[in-house]
Amino acid sequence: FFSDAFMAEDHYYIPSINFAMVCPGVYRSGYPSRKNFPFLKKIGIKTIVYLVPEDCLEGNREFYTATGIALMRFGLEGNKEPFVNIPDEVIQDALAQILDVRNHPLLIHCNKGKHRTGALVGCLRKLQGWSLTSIFDEYNRFAGTKGRVMDQQFIELFNPNVVYDPRFVPDWFKPEDMPHR
Amino acid sequence: FFSDAFMAEDHYYIPSINFAMVCPGVYRSGYPSRKNFPFLKKIGIKTIVYLVPEDCLEGNREFYTATGIALMRFGLEGNKEPFVNIPDEVIQDALAQILDVRNHPLLIHCNKGKHRTGALVGCLRKLQGWSLTSIFDEYNRFAGTKGRVMDQQFIELFNPNVVYDPRFVPDWFKPEDMPHR
Repeated sequence: FFSDAFMAEDHYYIPSINFAMVCPGVYRSGYPSRKNFPFLKKIGIKTIVYLVPEDCLEGNREFYTATGIALMRFGLEGNKEPFVNIPDEVIQDALAQILDVRNHPLLIHCNKGKHRTGALVGCLRKLQGWSLTSIFDEYNRFAGTKGRVMDQQFIELFNPNVVYDPRFVPDWFKPEDMPHR
Repeated sequence: FFSDAFMAEDHYYIPSINFAMVCPGVYRSGYPSRKNFPFLKKIGIKTIVYLVPEDCLEGNREFYTATGIALMRFGLEGNKEPFVNIPDEVIQDALAQILDVRNHPLLIHCNKGKHRTGALVGCLRKLQGWSLTSIFDEYNRFAGTKGRVMDQQFIELFNPNVVYDPRFVPDWFKPEDMPHR
């Protein structure tokens, strides 16, 4: 049957901007707003990997508390020129959480889902053994015309020595794929 | 330790161009080439949803046969203006296969992973109840500057009456999210 109510805007799911799947159990996007909460609930997000130095918006925090979503903060400054150094350790710590299935499904987000999220996902791809060309191609798909050489340089030079708990790694992660250095 | 051999180009994984996850168990990309076979094997692809009218490349067919990957053909003409009609039925049949976990993990591909693949994924998003704005945003992320209004029109007008087998639908598909018409 045709339901007028269904066609109303509030019955559509609205993913957060620049939303995508990264790997089984791992999603990425820009900053979620209230309109995106039903979607986050639908895909069952359990953990937010939050890459912004400022406190999480009050409305988001309330939604996370009410739905049992854990908020993990890794405050990264937007990587604008002149280059603000992102310490490898912060990214390594974030990756250790991403490589733990107990946190899945998990959403990585910053403000636009382009630079900080793109750099973190790029480092994850490095752990997965992707070629740099493929990593940068994906980075640029989300950054569009706003891609930053400094982010790509960060990914290229990133030290992938992540300390993870082998008991809880997702099945898509194979330690033997990691570059050694 | 540092392994010279590991750093050689052939030890990196190279996803096919315009590669991404769509949903758990569903991937998308452009036409895979020989360089991408180790990657397809790694992510465990079981089925190829092939959207090109021409025969599959011989080298690909051999790889699929050798690794037990099923090739499902849905020959779509590139949707160039003057508009070549894509029958809704072909897309509905492809979606019925995508909504069957027995085919997962599955890779949808055409030549560039932009237009035919983008239109099919857009129709899948419609079944998932996504807003058109979100669907077009995703379409354009992969199409870049080559986005086609005709593909977006196809998605908007697509009749989402897909006949699927409820016993085998993936857990991310909720029939109640489907638009009725």
